[in-house]
Amino acid sequence: MSKVKILNDPVYGFISIPYGIVFDLVEHPYFQRLRRIKQVSLTHYVYPGALHTRFHHALGAYHLTCQAIDVLRSKGTEITAAEAEAVGIAILLHDIGHGPFSHTLEHTLINITHEQLSVMIMEKLNQEFEGKLSLAIEIFNNRYHKHFLHQLVSGQLDMDRMDYLNRDSFFTGVSEGVIGYDRIIKMLAVHNNHLVVEEKGIYSIEKFLIARRLMYWQVYLHKTVLSAEQMMIQVLRRAKMLRHRGIKLGVQGSLNYFLENTFTQQDFSKNKSILLDRFASLDDTDIAFAIKGWQNHFDPVLSFLAKSLISRRLFKLEFQDQAPRQDDINFIRQKIEKQFPFSKDVANFLLIVGKETNTAYSTSKEEILILLKTGEVKPMSLVSNHGIQPKMFTKHYLCYPKEIIKE
Amino acid sequence: MSKVKILNDPVYGFISIPYGIVFDLVEHPYFQRLRRIKQVSLTHYVYPGALHTRFHHALGAYHLTCQAIDVLRSKGTEITAAEAEAVGIAILLHDIGHGPFSHTLEHTLINITHEQLSVMIMEKLNQEFEGKLSLAIEIFNNRYHKHFLHQLVSGQLDMDRMDYLNRDSFFTGVSEGVIGYDRIIKMLAVHNNHLVVEEKGIYSIEKFLIARRLMYWQVYLHKTVLSAEQMMIQVLRRAKMLRHRGIKLGVQGSLNYFLENTFTQQDFSKNKSILLDRFASLDDTDIAFAIKGWQNHFDPVLSFLAKSLISRRLFKLEFQDQAPRQDDINFIRQKIEKQFPFSKDVANFLLIVGKETNTAYSTSKEEILILLKTGEVKPMSLVSNHGIQPKMFTKHYLCYPKEIIKE
Amino acid sequence: MSKVKILNDPVYGFISIPYGIVFDLVEHPYFQRLRRIKQVSLTHYVYPGALHTRFHHALGAYHLTCQAIDVLRSKGTEITAAEAEAVGIAILLHDIGHGPFSHTLEHTLINITHEQLSVMIMEKLNQEFEGKLSLAIEIFNNRYHKHFLHQLVSGQLDMDRMDYLNRDSFFTGVSEGVIGYDRIIKMLAVHNNHLVVEEKGIYSIEKFLIARRLMYWQVYLHKTVLSAEQMMIQVLRRAKMLRHRGIKLGVQGSLNYFLENTFTQQDFSKNKSILLDRFASLDDTDIAFAIKGWQNHFDPVLSFLAKSLISRRLFKLEFQDQAPRQDDINFIRQKIEKQFPFSKDVANFLLIVGKETNTAYSTSKEEILILLKTGEVKPMSLVSNHGIQPKMFTKHYLCYPKEIIKE
Amino acid sequence: MSKVKILNDPVYGFISIPYGIVFDLVEHPYFQRLRRIKQVSLTHYVYPGALHTRFHHALGAYHLTCQAIDVLRSKGTEITAAEAEAVGIAILLHDIGHGPFSHTLEHTLINITHEQLSVMIMEKLNQEFEGKLSLAIEIFNNRYHKHFLHQLVSGQLDMDRMDYLNRDSFFTGVSEGVIGYDRIIKMLAVHNNHLVVEEKGIYSIEKFLIARRLMYWQVYLHKTVLSAEQMMIQVLRRAKMLRHRGIKLGVQGSLNYFLENTFTQQDFSKNKSILLDRFASLDDTDIAFAIKGWQNHFDPVLSFLAKSLISRRLFKLEFQDQAPRQDDINFIRQKIEKQFPFSKDVANFLLIVGKETNTAYSTSKEEILILLKTGEVKPMSLVSNHGIQPKMFTKHYLCYPKEIIKE
Repeated sequence: MSKVKILNDPVYGFISIPYGIVFDLVEHPYFQRLRRIKQVSLTHYVYPGALHTRFHHALGAYHLTCQAIDVLRSKGTEITAAEAEAVGIAILLHDIGHGPFSHTLEHTLINITHEQLSVMIMEKLNQEFEGKLSLAIEIFNNRYHKHFLHQLVSGQLDMDRMDYLNRDSFFTGVSEGVIGYDRIIKMLAVHNNHLVVEEKGIYSIEKFLIARRLMYWQVYLHKTVLSAEQMMIQVLRRAKMLRHRGIKLGVQGSLNYFLENTFTQQDFSKNKSILLDRFASLDDTDIAFAIKGWQNHFDPVLSFLAKSLISRRLFKLEFQDQAPRQDDINFIRQKIEKQFPFSKDVANFLLIVGKETNTAYSTSKEEILILLKTGEVKPMSLVSNHGIQPKMFTKHYLCYPKEIIKE
Repeated sequence: MSKVKILNDPVYGFISIPYGIVFDLVEHPYFQRLRRIKQVSLTHYVYPGALHTRFHHALGAYHLTCQAIDVLRSKGTEITAAEAEAVGIAILLHDIGHGPFSHTLEHTLINITHEQLSVMIMEKLNQEFEGKLSLAIEIFNNRYHKHFLHQLVSGQLDMDRMDYLNRDSFFTGVSEGVIGYDRIIKMLAVHNNHLVVEEKGIYSIEKFLIARRLMYWQVYLHKTVLSAEQMMIQVLRRAKMLRHRGIKLGVQGSLNYFLENTFTQQDFSKNKSILLDRFASLDDTDIAFAIKGWQNHFDPVLSFLAKSLISRRLFKLEFQDQAPRQDDINFIRQKIEKQFPFSKDVANFLLIVGKETNTAYSTSKEEILILLKTGEVKPMSLVSNHGIQPKMFTKHYLCYPKEIIKE
Repeated sequence: MSKVKILNDPVYGFISIPYGIVFDLVEHPYFQRLRRIKQVSLTHYVYPGALHTRFHHALGAYHLTCQAIDVLRSKGTEITAAEAEAVGIAILLHDIGHGPFSHTLEHTLINITHEQLSVMIMEKLNQEFEGKLSLAIEIFNNRYHKHFLHQLVSGQLDMDRMDYLNRDSFFTGVSEGVIGYDRIIKMLAVHNNHLVVEEKGIYSIEKFLIARRLMYWQVYLHKTVLSAEQMMIQVLRRAKMLRHRGIKLGVQGSLNYFLENTFTQQDFSKNKSILLDRFASLDDTDIAFAIKGWQNHFDPVLSFLAKSLISRRLFKLEFQDQAPRQDDINFIRQKIEKQFPFSKDVANFLLIVGKETNTAYSTSKEEILILLKTGEVKPMSLVSNHGIQPKMFTKHYLCYPKEIIKE
Repeated sequence: MSKVKILNDPVYGFISIPYGIVFDLVEHPYFQRLRRIKQVSLTHYVYPGALHTRFHHALGAYHLTCQAIDVLRSKGTEITAAEAEAVGIAILLHDIGHGPFSHTLEHTLINITHEQLSVMIMEKLNQEFEGKLSLAIEIFNNRYHKHFLHQLVSGQLDMDRMDYLNRDSFFTGVSEGVIGYDRIIKMLAVHNNHLVVEEKGIYSIEKFLIARRLMYWQVYLHKTVLSAEQMMIQVLRRAKMLRHRGIKLGVQGSLNYFLENTFTQQDFSKNKSILLDRFASLDDTDIAFAIKGWQNHFDPVLSFLAKSLISRRLFKLEFQDQAPRQDDINFIRQKIEKQFPFSKDVANFLLIVGKETNTAYSTSKEEILILLKTGEVKPMSLVSNHGIQPKMFTKHYLCYPKEIIKE
């Protein structure tokens, strides 16, 4: 009887998926694959509940987009049935190009961004679905004349951010990230083809930006999370290096293929059908299984890294305001080489010098617009100075085994 | 400064782990392994949030046990520091013997229950920790004279059930399972060495039993969940059969070892050190990865099952009150053999005839005891008839590919 | 810009009130009066958060009704804009006839039910709003041909019950009352002009009925709540008696008017304009203030009752399965007369012999209908035996001052 | 059996009150009176759920204080049973001196702060309870040598603020106010006799300060709430003026007493027993009832204000950054005098010129101290610049009837 499929979602209660193209896309193996890609990579090492997936996030963002469309229509903005479906598809597929462990391995396995892959996969699906995704792709690529539809999918106040803050906050249990998403959505409107927020929603926007910033430092860039993710990157770097030297890794299939080669966007464009299929067969499982196996690999660096990661004996990571001095780096490097005399280049994999930046809000991107009670529209940065902080925050870090004792 | 490690838990807010033996056990690879074993197997195929693990559950049950101890002490029951620690360890490790996909594969991979394995692993850890787990093991095995401590770990109102109902309800988003766990715990007391519930907590107990029953039908025995789990069992059965016939499965290591042999409790007792280590190296990852690989196996039955499971093209499963008639079974069997002429015995893997039972509360086990205001103690079944239903509910089912059309 | 007024509701997040007749009704003094009538009378004496009002409940029920209409329309049931508005108005005003302390004083102050008064007040508003409420009144009185619209307002699964269970559970903090209201609403459909629930919603219906029963015993008929409410009734009974004997109560205006007279439905029908205005000027404040003042009244029975109620020195109340024996009643009566020798008839006000009944579900009223997957429609009682219990539960009680010692 | 009384609290689940002095204080009429004083005055005019009381808040703050004591003890800080009880009593009674509608009428009815009254009432209770409150009073007045105990009761991170942010956020439904109170409490420690927060709790403190600021603008200083509260002040001012002119107000008892006189702290000190008893007999009911009655008073200014408030026809209030110019004030004043020619001084009651300030955090008061991982202790303002904003924000406003049309 129901014309919709209803899914339980602990975050929103229920999510409705209309039967038809949207349902068919959800059922497609490409989308089902997202069930096996965790939304926040290794964050669960610190927040054990954070095992939610890109699949769940995409459905949540779809749900919020449907709500936003209802609100905009109720305020007189015309959105046709075809446009509503298309913007829904665009948000549903916005992360379809994510590979194993999402951002963590984004530039380690292949040399192409997940956005570029999302577009390629959407185009492939468009062929399969006989052109029914064309409008969605136009909106996704910001080539459709109704600009505000693109803004729902991608912008400083898009349904992607709205869902991931909600969802990550829910599954980590970090109440700091709770946002008044329902209030924000109710305050959305369209003005001169741009998404705007009614003035009385301004506190909720401030709160949204502050929550985003806090989630960055408390979750996304948590030093233990970062350490785990850096270690995973080193595992993969080491594995690739060994493979290039002709050493067997006990890995077959697609993962082996991407370990042996580092494909770029050009490669993907040329060999679309093969590379996309290969890519789409990968998910978190492949990496997790390989690392488990590498615990017993004969290369001592690879096995040390793999064992440490699996048993959660994570590297020490501490933030500092300044870039570390070369002297300090050299000092730790020598310590490592002395304490871990595994191989000549061991310190290249056991010492990570890095930095992280966080801009909760940027005035150089398209700004969030506020519709004042007077009818005027102003950018957020001119209306409020709370939560804005367009400054980029940078934190530097050194990351290395806990066994190293500095003094 | 803190003498405890604090973990975020979206269910309870925070969980405190005291440094010392409890913390060391949590850090142990055997316990960390539980991070890779989902609490409710393939339930996430229906409730996408249900990806929580045995690791998280064990910590949650530990947390509730600490609360229960505080309550009992505040009512004058003497519990020494050593006893409190021991009961905490017992609940922390109560599920340590679970293998990949918990209950689903319990009798498919090996022929020994997870409780038996839990005891064996605890004993192994006891050696490693030089006897510090002895009291915990006594309590777990109900050999300690303070019987109520065992009841906190295992009984019809234990902290295990309390946590899993809470947690599964939270992560599935099924509000039907919400229980007043904090109220129940506050109403606990000890009377004649038995755990009892103060009379004014009786509605909460009724609600707890009803929630448990509803969670059974709505989540644990949801027909789609059951179908997915049955399919996974068939995949493993098929793989084992092929392996016994000498066919290669592309699987190495411990999983291969358990596919080639079906070990019993006796085997484990004899070769404890080898088998336990082998067992402890397995988790959900191994099975998930193997099934992904088997999608391309040359055995058509194995690859059909694997592909269907990975792409979520699940078998049809419908409950019926009576056991299906042999005629109906044969009819479907013939259909399968006609439509899927893969192998002679194909129907043995594509048709599952089964039944599920559910007893929310049993009067034949040690009953929940109610401490009346008069000072008298009575079993729950004599005090209330709501939620009790000591009757066992049985539902039969046939499960087979959706492509089969009966008429 | 918004065409709706948005209200924060901690239960549902937000409630939208469209500008127009619905908004105007909310702004009307008759409806604003509901802000001063607590939803659950003196329940806050036990659950201190339960101070929510009929105003909030009416808005909540309106909100759920709007959701239900959306769901029914999405399944193909035609509901015109005028019908949707009318059913919204009907639910908004369904409790408009409640007087001070809702049910508690329903038959003490005046002799007419709140439903009868609701209709009278709706008719008065209909005149004021020039006939715009006619359709709403037809639906409320079940005279409109689309029967299912009436069922949304009044029935065993109406939006009234749905909201009050949610809301009372939320503000009391009794998690036992949590219901899956959003799931239930999503499962509603219309079949042969009747509201039905799709089969897969059956567990939620069971849970709804069980939650309702538990809320009865744990909240609505909680013995301390009942005691407080019975004491308030006795205060008012005593005050009326004194007034009839010509004794001044220090009370003016409408409350005095209703203390001096006990009006029936006939009286209201005859003197509609005067009596309704008088009635509509009363709310909880008048009663609460009068009782505060009566603490110092020279009648010792009145002042004893008032002081006890204000300082929360509540009478003892214990439930028993059988009606109390006359001997027991006489015994306590004599004790009271001996310990409280205030007046000849003191025991008529300090001893309450009563009973309470609770039928969570009735098979003699229009049953909840289940739409089976086969297309058949069956009453709930034939589909499930959980939660139904069409039996009426009765509990008897004696209620009297704690100072009385029985032995 | 339980040695504690357990109360349901929707915010924290349960609150335990130990039998003994704490329970006896809760049962005392002075404390029960707080059941009839709303925590946030007329905020429910905007957020209909915000009907919670000072009674509930005091219990909540008590609950958090008990948790904080447990945490501090677990970190090695010695707190004796007597001290724990005393600090519990101090927080329980910290608001006992609040009169009707809390802050709103604080300087209108009497000329003494609620803190001064709290101390006087505690002293009176101390006599009644034979000196058992002496230590609590010392702590409340910051005369006890363990300074950190006072800080739990009163400071920039006290359990008062912690509870009211939680509670007001919960009952208004404004998710912006949600704070990680449990995390903050877990991070508390004592260093050199001062309360400190462990470094890893710093994000939660930032969030706490930001939430406080947002709650100010979104709830406490919401323009509609402010308008209603200002109107109530004018009603009382008008009533007092009339009474001083000898005009009858139809009000008896204590309220009349405080309308006829404006007592100062000196008066209270002199006539403690009489004035405190009179004061303690007042609560929201008296004011609410009086205003209802004044709707029909013959003074047109009083009745206009009373009717407007009861029917929620609230004055217009708009914030502006600068103090309004005298010209603008005069202009509106003339409009009022023309449109409401009730009395010569009508504009003194229908036009309010005011300002509100908000300092979420002050560096001039005792600062929140952070215990760094290095062991050093630093004030919050030197560790973080987020959320601090020690600047005072000021907003000016004019408030007058909506009927006035400026142009």
